[in-house]
Amino acid sequence: MLRIPFEEMEQTIFKAFIKAGLPENTAATCARIHTESSCDGVFSHGLNRVERFVDYLHRGWINPQGKAQLQTSLAAWEIYDGNMGPGITNAILAMNRASDLAKINGMGMVSLRNTTHWMRGGTYGWQAAEKGLLAICFTNTETCMPPWGARSGAIGNNPFIMAVPAANGQHIVLDMAMSQYSYGKLQVKRLANQQLPYNGGFTDNGALTCDPASIEESRRILPTGLWKGSGMAILIDLMATLLSGGNHTAAIDRLEQGSCASCCQVFMAFDPLQINSSDFVKNAIQDTIEQIKSAIPAEEVTEILYPGEQSLRNRNENRQLGIPVDASVWNRVIELAEG
Amino acid sequence: MLRIPFEEMEQTIFKAFIKAGLPENTAATCARIHTESSCDGVFSHGLNRVERFVDYLHRGWINPQGKAQLQTSLAAWEIYDGNMGPGITNAILAMNRASDLAKINGMGMVSLRNTTHWMRGGTYGWQAAEKGLLAICFTNTETCMPPWGARSGAIGNNPFIMAVPAANGQHIVLDMAMSQYSYGKLQVKRLANQQLPYNGGFTDNGALTCDPASIEESRRILPTGLWKGSGMAILIDLMATLLSGGNHTAAIDRLEQGSCASCCQVFMAFDPLQINSSDFVKNAIQDTIEQIKSAIPAEEVTEILYPGEQSLRNRNENRQLGIPVDASVWNRVIELAEG
Repeated sequence: MLRIPFEEMEQTIFKAFIKAGLPENTAATCARIHTESSCDGVFSHGLNRVERFVDYLHRGWINPQGKAQLQTSLAAWEIYDGNMGPGITNAILAMNRASDLAKINGMGMVSLRNTTHWMRGGTYGWQAAEKGLLAICFTNTETCMPPWGARSGAIGNNPFIMAVPAANGQHIVLDMAMSQYSYGKLQVKRLANQQLPYNGGFTDNGALTCDPASIEESRRILPTGLWKGSGMAILIDLMATLLSGGNHTAAIDRLEQGSCASCCQVFMAFDPLQINSSDFVKNAIQDTIEQIKSAIPAEEVTEILYPGEQSLRNRNENRQLGIPVDASVWNRVIELAEG
Repeated sequence: MLRIPFEEMEQTIFKAFIKAGLPENTAATCARIHTESSCDGVFSHGLNRVERFVDYLHRGWINPQGKAQLQTSLAAWEIYDGNMGPGITNAILAMNRASDLAKINGMGMVSLRNTTHWMRGGTYGWQAAEKGLLAICFTNTETCMPPWGARSGAIGNNPFIMAVPAANGQHIVLDMAMSQYSYGKLQVKRLANQQLPYNGGFTDNGALTCDPASIEESRRILPTGLWKGSGMAILIDLMATLLSGGNHTAAIDRLEQGSCASCCQVFMAFDPLQINSSDFVKNAIQDTIEQIKSAIPAEEVTEILYPGEQSLRNRNENRQLGIPVDASVWNRVIELAEG
């Protein structure tokens, strides 16, 4: 397996982003986040997403100079227009501002319209947790999934993030899309000639299936938790839209500018130390993790993990050994950097 | 099928609650909410739950006089102690207060510790939507589900609610627990000699199954969306706990006072008209519903429903024809009312 040191990957992506016309600060931030995502094991929105991001810049679907601007301020809630700027820098700005509002008011919220794909949503959960804050974030997307009861697409997979800060950076971070698997995952499994471990969608004839190729063909990807993830996707879409005054999924579809064009995002942060002692916080988290860890493992399971734990393990391993990459993807990013 | 008129059910439950020692106002509110839940088709937390609520009052697990009291006020966020009062009246008070804060500040949040089971969580989503507000609510519970990767229970099913107000009371309301099915549903299916339509848990040998009896035996109920619902349950528990300074799931377990003893709840409300025109709100919702409704139905599906739509249909039908009841459950509540 080819492994690339963190700094080398970050520098290479940075050069590719500079070549694509991003200002230096923006390129540096985006390169760091893409590298961190790959380092945490979220390859789909890390190195593997660099080429598509550059393509969107070339097409004019992302404004390299675009920056979120304050539109309305209401007590602990601020609404920004993202001006079609890079999703990563807009989202970092939004979560930073929500965090500042939380430090002042106990809780803070920033909503963002007219922004672009934020890449790995978990990034902003980790960002708040690093400041000792709880976080909830969500985004809407273009249509990519049938609602429950349908065979054709009409809803997004609208990711949802929750984060709780814990000692020693071992934060508890949930980062879930409303589809059980992503199309990226289906492709990886198909190319490896593997079946999914659990049903990931319906065949064209309406049978549940673990076969990735059948789902790629039918486009009938399964919502997380069947009707529940379908319903949650609908609510996240409307809530993100109405909290930011931006585009709902059907409006994003009509733009035809790729994934998450001019989408809406919401960032909430909460300061637990404004109402609790640090001992209370520490004990509640520790006791919860202990209870989970001491459950009896299922067949063929050796250890029960909490959300975010695998990311942190990947991070530690890949910082030491280098970040695993697909050689063809890596070579393509080098081309973009040097081309 | 036995059907009982709304007012008759409400009056009968009211009498049972008065007999059990609830003050008149509290009894009236709780009777109305239990009746509304049954009327909307959520029987498990409506009429069917009356006997258990009365039992908890008799055991002293719910304080009939208990009422939520303000502990801390932070800008748009207030923290209350529920004093082990009835979950319904505490939750209504909390959502009312969150709604007032939202009307003033654009958004408002109330968290509640030391409260008891709120019955149907969707109640509080509908409550906010009736005021034209968006809402998010969640609660933690006692342990009732294995975390992903475990065969023994260690997490709650921690319900999560999102609501969006729409025209003519046709609100969009998601009310989902973090288990794919409830144990109540498994029992109903087993008694009817039916299989679940989709996998609801694991057998004792670790095989996914649609057989309700096997899951009741193994206690290996399936999280919504497999690892995703398990992760979300963990995050909801910690977030509810740290936002209210109350008991996390493991602490609720140790109390051994039934379901949701001294649990934590969070109520958020948002006023969409503080940043949007009413036309914008109306169009975004209407266009979203139209897009969902115009998806091609799957095999054997005639119509695609949005979250909350079935509740409203049940409500309209049952208001007209009477609320369907199980005769033995109804007779038991009459006994409690007259006994």
